[in-house]
Amino acid sequence: MRMLIANPNSTAALTTACVGLAREAAAPATEVTGWTNDAGPRVVDGLYADYLAGAALVRGLLALRPVPEAVVLAGFGNYGTGAVKEVLDVPVVSMAEAAMALATLLCHRFAIVTTATRMIPYTEDLVRLAGLEGRCAGVRAVPLPPIDQPPPSAEAVVEMLAAEVDRAERELGADLVILGGARLSPYATGLRPRVRLPVVEPVACAVHCAEGLVRLGLRQSKAGRFARPPGLPV
Amino acid sequence: MRMLIANPNSTAALTTACVGLAREAAAPATEVTGWTNDAGPRVVDGLYADYLAGAALVRGLLALRPVPEAVVLAGFGNYGTGAVKEVLDVPVVSMAEAAMALATLLCHRFAIVTTATRMIPYTEDLVRLAGLEGRCAGVRAVPLPPIDQPPPSAEAVVEMLAAEVDRAERELGADLVILGGARLSPYATGLRPRVRLPVVEPVACAVHCAEGLVRLGLRQSKAGRFARPPGLPV
Amino acid sequence: MRMLIANPNSTAALTTACVGLAREAAAPATEVTGWTNDAGPRVVDGLYADYLAGAALVRGLLALRPVPEAVVLAGFGNYGTGAVKEVLDVPVVSMAEAAMALATLLCHRFAIVTTATRMIPYTEDLVRLAGLEGRCAGVRAVPLPPIDQPPPSAEAVVEMLAAEVDRAERELGADLVILGGARLSPYATGLRPRVRLPVVEPVACAVHCAEGLVRLGLRQSKAGRFARPPGLPV
Amino acid sequence: MRMLIANPNSTAALTTACVGLAREAAAPATEVTGWTNDAGPRVVDGLYADYLAGAALVRGLLALRPVPEAVVLAGFGNYGTGAVKEVLDVPVVSMAEAAMALATLLCHRFAIVTTATRMIPYTEDLVRLAGLEGRCAGVRAVPLPPIDQPPPSAEAVVEMLAAEVDRAERELGADLVILGGARLSPYATGLRPRVRLPVVEPVACAVHCAEGLVRLGLRQSKAGRFARPPGLPV
Amino acid sequence: MRMLIANPNSTAALTTACVGLAREAAAPATEVTGWTNDAGPRVVDGLYADYLAGAALVRGLLALRPVPEAVVLAGFGNYGTGAVKEVLDVPVVSMAEAAMALATLLCHRFAIVTTATRMIPYTEDLVRLAGLEGRCAGVRAVPLPPIDQPPPSAEAVVEMLAAEVDRAERELGADLVILGGARLSPYATGLRPRVRLPVVEPVACAVHCAEGLVRLGLRQSKAGRFARPPGLPV
Amino acid sequence: MRMLIANPNSTAALTTACVGLAREAAAPATEVTGWTNDAGPRVVDGLYADYLAGAALVRGLLALRPVPEAVVLAGFGNYGTGAVKEVLDVPVVSMAEAAMALATLLCHRFAIVTTATRMIPYTEDLVRLAGLEGRCAGVRAVPLPPIDQPPPSAEAVVEMLAAEVDRAERELGADLVILGGARLSPYATGLRPRVRLPVVEPVACAVHCAEGLVRLGLRQSKAGRFARPPGLPV
Repeated sequence: MRMLIANPNSTAALTTACVGLAREAAAPATEVTGWTNDAGPRVVDGLYADYLAGAALVRGLLALRPVPEAVVLAGFGNYGTGAVKEVLDVPVVSMAEAAMALATLLCHRFAIVTTATRMIPYTEDLVRLAGLEGRCAGVRAVPLPPIDQPPPSAEAVVEMLAAEVDRAERELGADLVILGGARLSPYATGLRPRVRLPVVEPVACAVHCAEGLVRLGLRQSKAGRFARPPGLPV
Repeated sequence: MRMLIANPNSTAALTTACVGLAREAAAPATEVTGWTNDAGPRVVDGLYADYLAGAALVRGLLALRPVPEAVVLAGFGNYGTGAVKEVLDVPVVSMAEAAMALATLLCHRFAIVTTATRMIPYTEDLVRLAGLEGRCAGVRAVPLPPIDQPPPSAEAVVEMLAAEVDRAERELGADLVILGGARLSPYATGLRPRVRLPVVEPVACAVHCAEGLVRLGLRQSKAGRFARPPGLPV
Repeated sequence: MRMLIANPNSTAALTTACVGLAREAAAPATEVTGWTNDAGPRVVDGLYADYLAGAALVRGLLALRPVPEAVVLAGFGNYGTGAVKEVLDVPVVSMAEAAMALATLLCHRFAIVTTATRMIPYTEDLVRLAGLEGRCAGVRAVPLPPIDQPPPSAEAVVEMLAAEVDRAERELGADLVILGGARLSPYATGLRPRVRLPVVEPVACAVHCAEGLVRLGLRQSKAGRFARPPGLPV
Repeated sequence: MRMLIANPNSTAALTTACVGLAREAAAPATEVTGWTNDAGPRVVDGLYADYLAGAALVRGLLALRPVPEAVVLAGFGNYGTGAVKEVLDVPVVSMAEAAMALATLLCHRFAIVTTATRMIPYTEDLVRLAGLEGRCAGVRAVPLPPIDQPPPSAEAVVEMLAAEVDRAERELGADLVILGGARLSPYATGLRPRVRLPVVEPVACAVHCAEGLVRLGLRQSKAGRFARPPGLPV
Repeated sequence: MRMLIANPNSTAALTTACVGLAREAAAPATEVTGWTNDAGPRVVDGLYADYLAGAALVRGLLALRPVPEAVVLAGFGNYGTGAVKEVLDVPVVSMAEAAMALATLLCHRFAIVTTATRMIPYTEDLVRLAGLEGRCAGVRAVPLPPIDQPPPSAEAVVEMLAAEVDRAERELGADLVILGGARLSPYATGLRPRVRLPVVEPVACAVHCAEGLVRLGLRQSKAGRFARPPGLPV
Repeated sequence: MRMLIANPNSTAALTTACVGLAREAAAPATEVTGWTNDAGPRVVDGLYADYLAGAALVRGLLALRPVPEAVVLAGFGNYGTGAVKEVLDVPVVSMAEAAMALATLLCHRFAIVTTATRMIPYTEDLVRLAGLEGRCAGVRAVPLPPIDQPPPSAEAVVEMLAAEVDRAERELGADLVILGGARLSPYATGLRPRVRLPVVEPVACAVHCAEGLVRLGLRQSKAGRFARPPGLPV
């Protein structure tokens, strides 16, 4: 199966990292290809970047030939997820939605750790739109430096994440944590041995969900919310 | 005060109509200017169009000089409302948010009538994001033809709207109705004598709210959710 | 336009203060008159006082001649707001409802600061009845002395308010604060330079909303919840 | 035990009817006394009447000597229930609250049948304030004539109620019905053999709850919401 | 009236303690009998024990002859409460449901104190299923040792409970506390003089509610959710 | 991977049917084994059967050797799902949870069709416990005869299902339907060509989710809600 990992921002290094995580998670028969949103912003760090990213993403994916058999949106946000589901006829899975969906099977209440304090309300809106407020213990942030600056050492990031996960357990009553940003996904492996809570890495979740939808012959409903828009060029 | 009425789509006739409604609603000292989102789609008829509209809108408004003292977003949707609030330092009011906010003062539960069945879930998400599910009796649609086809006669549209308002009262228990689309706003005057429920026309609401914010020295919070994004060109 | 600022309690000094704030906020053509609920309690400091205030208020306003063109209820509470909307045919705006309505345009989640710990559940019920729990980060109190004792210095009150606003941002994640009591309204001007969050002063909000309703020809729905009661003396 | 059945309106016939129902429900050792709110309106038919009733009720009950050991508020509404709880130190039970509380033990979702269409939003607010929206299937009305007109025959009222109960089961999925008005309580006995759903008569519920609170040494919390107000005359 | 106090676990000492509390709470004419779920686990300390307890409980109670006139389930949990309501035709009252129902009459928001940290999510689900999230300030735990180890001194348990009640008031804004476990019920008397908040002891609540249902001729709805299951042996 | 399909009831024909569906859905490397809950009831048709099924299920699965690598609970209900998650250390996936989780990726609001009117409240509680009320448009039933009677023809069941799906779309606004009962799962293939809405078959969803959890190294959180109970035999 040909699966596209679409990075909603233009930072190719993140695409590479996500494709790596996707390949580890994918079934052997899944052929994973990366796609970088070259016309999008370098990082989705707010609502402005979300719209710039989403518009470029949906245009880019609509034009893509050949059409992949499934699309994974490899950013922890909105950036036009519904729009992509509307314009494509193949299954489209956002890593945020997939992570939250699988988390509902595993816990009482999950926490999400995001990459900047300013992304907390943005992420809370994602949870609200998914209708999962009742399952979310809260959203916390581990501030990372701007994407064009060198990140802290992996050890330092893992340390900060571990501290935040512990706080989420103690202060919010969370019993599972979702890494809420593509930039955080690569730290999942390092983080797991450090914390008591299960750590959900969203790229892998989305890859697996997308494989499942293809296998089961399911995709976003075209009979309602995601029906092809009337004005869409054929 | 210089107020911009920004039409998120590229249909100039709608800008003209909204500017007309805005001028009727505005205080004498308010100087109303229209702005058409020429780089956007002809109509926002779904999530795809929403993102195309929003990205062009926020780019266009960010580049606009001189910066107006307040911006009214004259479409009943999302299309980057939060993004515009993020990038601008002047008050930004969406007509959907303003209509719902004023409706909370006037009723038990409002209904929204939108312009296409496919916009019902889109509009329900607007209500959910505003946190107003508990005040919304439901969303209904009066299907209009595509924007490039001639609309029915005003009398026919008013007739359909009146029938839908009556159903919203009878079936949903609504005691107020919001016209949920810029294309419906011009029919408010014709509709009011035909129905028992108050009819809220959102352009006027947004104009009045925007005037109020300017007068009271208020604008969207820059201390949290709508803080200027780090990557924004100065 | 003739607008009445109705103080639900009998403390004339509060009427004077609210009328002052109202005049600052009002349009030039608005003629603001104060009205003190002489038959009400000196302060609304709980549910008992709420009912005494509300009954006297609604009786007083029903008897008032000439009927004003709009009524602003200048107390941050319930005290019969719905009853006044029921018996009057002109727009009636409570300052609590107006402040929360405008706040929804400006923030992710607002905090309300009230004047006594015992008013926190009372205020939470206001938020619940408005259906805005999802937008309210929490209610806090800055305890003021009883109304017949001299208040602390303005500087001291502003200091306490500023500390509470900072806590609301830090502990509750609020990005806007509403001053939840007529006694707090006069401190808005002093508070604003001291805090990062926008400070919403409800009297001004209500005045502006009331002006808007008059201008737009809107009032509380008489087709449902606020229909004139059958037993009302004509 | 001395229990007061306080009728929030001034219609003595309703007091008599409620006292009769209360005596049937009470334990042998309970001494039931009726009290009519002579200074209140003839019927609580809206928010205006609610405030007039509540203010007179709380004043009247505060002055009452000797203080009863428990107070039942025998009207299906708010009319200052919280205010009475605030000013009295003995248990105060509203028949609406008691009926909903017991109903939660007996059903999946209850319906409430009230006495006038205009009381539907009023009653929905009661449910919302009680935090029981999730257990309430809906509110319906069986319109009764104004209280000063002769009521339909008992048979006719029971017939209308039975039809409405059936609709509540079929259309709303309710599996229990609460009679939402003191005027409806006397029809419970006639209605029960006619319908499949359990019929909850609120006066009896409140009497039993009040007896229980006295026996168990419980009353409304004086450590928070219902603490005696500071300004209360001793 | 013959009332059965059914202890869902097999620890006879708890049955004895609950019967003692029940007799204190019951009316003179109520004949209280204890029943121990001998085929159940020694304690319900999680979801596994909940199911073992519930299956044995429902089987045991179904076989019981003579059938009591009312059944009180004397454990603070689920353990098949709905199943017992389904198979029996007499009123069945769970002490958890009864305590929460009566608490709604007495407070703004209640806290529940349970006996183990691991029971917090279990108890939160009880609250959610009862539809009372909006009235529950939170769930806390006072960890007790395993049931086969000697408990701390009564004084020590009361001390821990008092500290937790104070925290619930201060940190959660609770104004009433429910003792959320049959093992905690005996400490209610000792706890009350130590704390400001009313302390609700659930066995007594359930006894009183069950007496009330019998007296009022009410029981769980057999017209819907708790209808006798088709496959039930007669 | 060795995956167990555990049928919570004792009807072996249903196990066979579910194993068939599971094998179709599973990856080639997944070895699917069926398990029938011989000690459970023939069908889970209510809360009583739920507890009997759950207790037998959890006991049976706890004793099973060798322990499978993942367990799918192949019934659309609760019947001790949490208990099984508690006692096992391998991933446990209920087909109801999995179907709802995947549905959140595909639609605005799903409907569930169950097999008996009396299962509607039971199923609504499942949705509530999953915290997904905001995504569920409603629960409907297509009544099947008792399990020991011959079912209608496949064509007749599909016909009834198709009619109910159409109603769910038209009356509830659903844009996806979940088959809410193992007895309905085999009709998914026949139903799909007959309806506009995507039809989610839960066995396949659960199989795929369970495979994913194994592959991703995830399982239910043992750091909180599903921690191994203290009293569990090792």
